[in-house]
Amino acid sequence: MRKNNRPIGVFDSGLGGLTVLRQLRRILPRERFIYFGDTARVPYGSKSPETVRRYSAEIVRFLVKKNVKMVVVACNTSSALALKDLKEKFPIPICGVVEPGAALALRKSISGRIGIIGTEATIKSQIYPITLKALAGDRPIEVFGLATPLLVPLVEEGITAGPIANLIIKNYLGHLWRMEIDVLILGCTHYPLLKNTIRKILDKNIVLVDSALAVAEKVKDILAKNNLAIEHGRKLSPEFYVTDSSEKFRQLGQRFLREKISDVHLIKFL
Amino acid sequence: MRKNNRPIGVFDSGLGGLTVLRQLRRILPRERFIYFGDTARVPYGSKSPETVRRYSAEIVRFLVKKNVKMVVVACNTSSALALKDLKEKFPIPICGVVEPGAALALRKSISGRIGIIGTEATIKSQIYPITLKALAGDRPIEVFGLATPLLVPLVEEGITAGPIANLIIKNYLGHLWRMEIDVLILGCTHYPLLKNTIRKILDKNIVLVDSALAVAEKVKDILAKNNLAIEHGRKLSPEFYVTDSSEKFRQLGQRFLREKISDVHLIKFL
Repeated sequence: MRKNNRPIGVFDSGLGGLTVLRQLRRILPRERFIYFGDTARVPYGSKSPETVRRYSAEIVRFLVKKNVKMVVVACNTSSALALKDLKEKFPIPICGVVEPGAALALRKSISGRIGIIGTEATIKSQIYPITLKALAGDRPIEVFGLATPLLVPLVEEGITAGPIANLIIKNYLGHLWRMEIDVLILGCTHYPLLKNTIRKILDKNIVLVDSALAVAEKVKDILAKNNLAIEHGRKLSPEFYVTDSSEKFRQLGQRFLREKISDVHLIKFL
Repeated sequence: MRKNNRPIGVFDSGLGGLTVLRQLRRILPRERFIYFGDTARVPYGSKSPETVRRYSAEIVRFLVKKNVKMVVVACNTSSALALKDLKEKFPIPICGVVEPGAALALRKSISGRIGIIGTEATIKSQIYPITLKALAGDRPIEVFGLATPLLVPLVEEGITAGPIANLIIKNYLGHLWRMEIDVLILGCTHYPLLKNTIRKILDKNIVLVDSALAVAEKVKDILAKNNLAIEHGRKLSPEFYVTDSSEKFRQLGQRFLREKISDVHLIKFL
């Protein structure tokens, strides 16, 4: 197969990365995609850095065997903990979600007071404050991180609105509210499905940053710079691989991706 | 080592089984215990039957190598989906949590209208209605099962009381309330930590059945029948094995077990 016609690998611990895949398919409609969801081992956000690194490397090894031309780490926890390690291990371009999201947040913030919500592991890693501060250079900014561990199970259960979602989000965001942020980074690819509920609760002047679109633009750049963009191609359905057969992946996944999911393969061991 | 002095293996997908271990240590203070928590792969309740069976067999294989004299499956999901398979595969006594809990519920129920809450996988397996009806014989009973998938993440986050726990539980239990049950089985070893919150919300006449105590009594029986009870022994700390190193296991685990957890070993691959 010609180098440029090879697929792009996208992976996440579960369903969340499908929000990134959706934007990738919008921005790069002619590219081919392979999506890998580690549904047997979701969630990553409560696991240790070593375990997240080990799982991430197993998945990228699988994708490389599938002959992908680049990999998108569509999981904030894995981007936070494993990206450096993956870039050292594998000789193809690898793009995470943290840096594009952080760059977008900086462009949107006027006051420089930026909030970030994510899994325990992402927040604990301090990757967002570190990345934001590196990108901001001399510009003074303040970053307020908050772990919101119940939001992934909530979304994976399909509860994205209503009194329970409202109460849990209100309870979490009260802390950030008081920090007078003007931008809130949704630091987990599951959270865009809660965007409407979060928007209702937060001050209307606070901009919500969903990194999916920023990631898609970044991937477009990487392909161009590495001369890897597909030359001819038509929009094809992505191929899906999961580690646990689950009707739920298909059902809920369609809400994340906003298109039909049919071709799902089960991978027993990596 | 003499046959009877060997330890008893206890396993769960994570922390929940510690509520069972606690009762085992109360009832059988001289026995030695090895506890295995599959913390890297928790939760089991949303996984497919094949995956739960595979993980459970891997753990029992590990425990058998540790020379245990019997195994307690301290996880409702695994008891529901894997117990039969485990009993066929391994030649030692294996005790699950479903049958002892069901038997206790039948003894407590006057009306024969029994509610059961559990993970998606446990409820979907229909193991409780099947077991309850088999044990009830000619006695007419009605069983009302309800999947309550948010309760495990809630407990694993340490939220066992307060407005969020109240709202989520109220929202789930409303359905069962209307069924006029007189017994509610806590069909997941995590749920005993929510017992006080559940009790506040439910009608005071409804008996909550936590199978941990019933399981401990059953294990005592099995040891006696198989001539496996320890002859001499003094109360020792259990040995702990987990698949993900986590300070959380130690911290939250102490709340489950109500004693200090020190000796935790990390198992990378089974």
